[in-house]
Amino acid sequence: MSVKNILCVMADQLLADYLSCYGHPTLQTPHIDALAARGVRFSRAYAQAPVCGPSRMSFYTGRYVSSHGSTYNGVPLRIGEMTIGDHLRPLGVRVAIVGKTHIAADRIGMARLGVDPCSIEGVYVRECGFEPYERDDGLWPDQSAPYDLAYNRYLRGLGYDAANPWHDYANAAEGEAGELLSGWLMRNATKPARVKEEHSETAYMTNRAMQFIDEAGEKPWCLHLSYIKPHWPYIAPAPYHAMYGRHDIIPPNRHQRERKNPHPVYGAFMRHEESINFTRTRVRDAVIPAYMGLIKQIDDHFGRLWRFLEERRLTERTLIVFTSDHGDYLGDHWLGEKDLFHEESVRVPMILYDPHSRADRTRNTVDDRLVEAIDLAPTFVEAAGGAPADHILEGRSLLPATRHPDDSTGVPWRTAAISECDYTFRWARLKLKRPVDGARGWMLRTKRWKYIFFESFRPQLFDLRTDPHELVDLGQSRACAKIRVDLHEQLFAWLRARRNRVTLPNVLVERSTNTYKNRGFLFGVW
Amino acid sequence: MSVKNILCVMADQLLADYLSCYGHPTLQTPHIDALAARGVRFSRAYAQAPVCGPSRMSFYTGRYVSSHGSTYNGVPLRIGEMTIGDHLRPLGVRVAIVGKTHIAADRIGMARLGVDPCSIEGVYVRECGFEPYERDDGLWPDQSAPYDLAYNRYLRGLGYDAANPWHDYANAAEGEAGELLSGWLMRNATKPARVKEEHSETAYMTNRAMQFIDEAGEKPWCLHLSYIKPHWPYIAPAPYHAMYGRHDIIPPNRHQRERKNPHPVYGAFMRHEESINFTRTRVRDAVIPAYMGLIKQIDDHFGRLWRFLEERRLTERTLIVFTSDHGDYLGDHWLGEKDLFHEESVRVPMILYDPHSRADRTRNTVDDRLVEAIDLAPTFVEAAGGAPADHILEGRSLLPATRHPDDSTGVPWRTAAISECDYTFRWARLKLKRPVDGARGWMLRTKRWKYIFFESFRPQLFDLRTDPHELVDLGQSRACAKIRVDLHEQLFAWLRARRNRVTLPNVLVERSTNTYKNRGFLFGVW
Repeated sequence: MSVKNILCVMADQLLADYLSCYGHPTLQTPHIDALAARGVRFSRAYAQAPVCGPSRMSFYTGRYVSSHGSTYNGVPLRIGEMTIGDHLRPLGVRVAIVGKTHIAADRIGMARLGVDPCSIEGVYVRECGFEPYERDDGLWPDQSAPYDLAYNRYLRGLGYDAANPWHDYANAAEGEAGELLSGWLMRNATKPARVKEEHSETAYMTNRAMQFIDEAGEKPWCLHLSYIKPHWPYIAPAPYHAMYGRHDIIPPNRHQRERKNPHPVYGAFMRHEESINFTRTRVRDAVIPAYMGLIKQIDDHFGRLWRFLEERRLTERTLIVFTSDHGDYLGDHWLGEKDLFHEESVRVPMILYDPHSRADRTRNTVDDRLVEAIDLAPTFVEAAGGAPADHILEGRSLLPATRHPDDSTGVPWRTAAISECDYTFRWARLKLKRPVDGARGWMLRTKRWKYIFFESFRPQLFDLRTDPHELVDLGQSRACAKIRVDLHEQLFAWLRARRNRVTLPNVLVERSTNTYKNRGFLFGVW
Repeated sequence: MSVKNILCVMADQLLADYLSCYGHPTLQTPHIDALAARGVRFSRAYAQAPVCGPSRMSFYTGRYVSSHGSTYNGVPLRIGEMTIGDHLRPLGVRVAIVGKTHIAADRIGMARLGVDPCSIEGVYVRECGFEPYERDDGLWPDQSAPYDLAYNRYLRGLGYDAANPWHDYANAAEGEAGELLSGWLMRNATKPARVKEEHSETAYMTNRAMQFIDEAGEKPWCLHLSYIKPHWPYIAPAPYHAMYGRHDIIPPNRHQRERKNPHPVYGAFMRHEESINFTRTRVRDAVIPAYMGLIKQIDDHFGRLWRFLEERRLTERTLIVFTSDHGDYLGDHWLGEKDLFHEESVRVPMILYDPHSRADRTRNTVDDRLVEAIDLAPTFVEAAGGAPADHILEGRSLLPATRHPDDSTGVPWRTAAISECDYTFRWARLKLKRPVDGARGWMLRTKRWKYIFFESFRPQLFDLRTDPHELVDLGQSRACAKIRVDLHEQLFAWLRARRNRVTLPNVLVERSTNTYKNRGFLFGVW
């Protein structure tokens, strides 16, 4: 059967290696594994930025960060940038979000162009092209939580009485004297959240996705189910808070050598509070089991969602993706959080289930070619029967990978994956005394090499063949000088090829080439 | 007195060297020269593209072609790109166009965002941010001339009876038997246009500028008076058609050596019809005197406009620029038209008259620093009392050049000027078998060197110190290998620094750096 619906499930800050199908030894994720068994698992998929906002804007626009310009969390996506919704709606697909997008709306651009934020077009600009069936970015400190946040209303209706039950119940635990232990503090990660599991965010968003699907009926839809977890606050509801202990933790991937004369940007990030804390065994022992529990919970709800789809025979005609927006260092490489370009931060899980019968022979296979987050937008357009707008979308459809794995299309696959970093907003920039527009970095990862270039600093280089754990920086190795020059030029060539002529489809460009004189503009004619 | 109004006069396809203040030996342009005597003449000013559309979009947006994305004539300027009008209007300035902008409106983007093309905001999108007091792009083959073009209505009202009097009178001559001799054909360039001089486009647009200024009254304004001439059709009204003869022509700047093993892109352009024709003495002898006559006519009308302003005491408070969007090969380097990066094509005249008393000591000076077309937008913003939006505008204000020529601001001047080419739409691309998105080129011009890089071809290099006429391509010289590597990296560094974070002013970026935890997002805290 051909594809009718699209379900794009994204976890937030989920390290690829924390799924059993990607090799985690103690964390079993059978439901996500089952999706991989039914589809293709991409083992080398990369986020276009190792930070939520810019990574997601790349997922949603199908364009690199340098092209869409939303380089960090909170940088509004410029008005006019097209998203998955803009590409799919003309094909008759209803495109909706349940959960997080992390878009900041370009309200100044809207005002300048007279786009009413409450018009249909205005809502799409504000909501990243999605119908906001349930928009919830999932991070609500008391000072920014809207009182009428739908999830908070839901919790209050269930008796979780608080101004901000998202925090006080879903993301906080309780001390022995009944005092509130905030999930914002990692010391509390071992405790259970005060919310019942079935009322937690992951459960709630799964329910909302099911409601959307039931309401959507027969019209084709594309639903982006976007879980906030296992992103911090690292706190899980019972019983997931206690499923794993310190003996289930993978040892940290780091080496003392990394701390000696590190690359300046890397060295500055090592001094961030989250990095310092995650170097401590005590922190990892408290946080990682909670992180694993949150993933286990997502897996269980993903299983519930699959059964729900199966009961409605929707798995037969729904393309399903499972991915994440970036990883989490968790103390690897002496770092916490994300932002930089080690595999732990920038590589993401990417599983594609294609219900089409032509994809049958690729089921339960692993594809180790270089895949990028921007590939999903053109994949969805092709799955919906459209032709990806090749003057705008910078990724490439993954359907040939499920349906023509032998590359019979004749188009060579990419030879490098790219990711971008803008650490302007971080303490590291202040420490390094870089100007606001001079704190950018790029990663170019080929099959063998990972080349990293931060503006105004020496490059980094890793040989992933001999050093898959990225513990030896060859950025100053004389023996690798020529390799660095070559990769540097590859990066330049990539940047030169950005698609900025976004207003004219290539087919029209081709058709209008050399037609001036036919149209009466007789220049240079004697 | 401080600046109140801004008048930006642009000629189209005017070679800098065809003004007497820039050194033309036989073509005297006393009125433009007088502006130079009252202001600063920039001797090394560059268009950001040697083609009308993209060059103008850079003038109007203050951004490089790679940033605004309108890479060639007819490529719509993407909705949301801000222009001079968008920057000046919030400062209380009325911003209008008389003449040509060459914008193609992003109608698809407008429809997607629900911007009504007839709303005020929609008109600004369509008209490149200008109030279309008199929009006339000046090239009207019969098949595309709108019947109600204002200039055509004007001519018909004067008795020039035709469906397209723009062509039949203003841009055509008459044969001995009364037959129409089209100005589109260069063979007719020696003849006078059938229109009276005072009804020609240059006269008409000057009149319209005066009408605007008289109507504008006391409110500050910025008027872009944008002449279509001396752009082809190369045909001048009497008496200008006969003011110059072949003895007044500068000899072509070319050398037989250039035709031997030329750079492939250059070689392909040499085979264009306009190039082949302009290598012929007969063509140059016919066309160049007409071209000179059209410039002389502009100079006379510019003189008329200056007197008009002076009579109203407007020269005391009006910042005036005289420039062009690009040059014209006219047979130099065996080429016609423009498109490539020789000085004849990419260098433009740039004269800045700043009425402010602080500019008195720079009057009648020549500034040989590298200036770019994108510098005008921030110049106008600063002149109007605003702070240029440094996260969007990529040029730099020229007011320090008129008011602080000793660089007392402490900010170093740029070390290179950039121009960009997209020859996708030209025959040369077909000849070279390049794909639609693989026909881009870049010029980086430092004080001494000009480095040119076309995608997938060897570079070009000129030493402007020893070879100011650009007759010796050092692109394959072994002695210059290190210089090329250095310039190539400079080009990469330039491309990395493009301003794509356009939705967030740098001052807000600075202010919000490292504030996450203050706002309650307590990540990495134990």
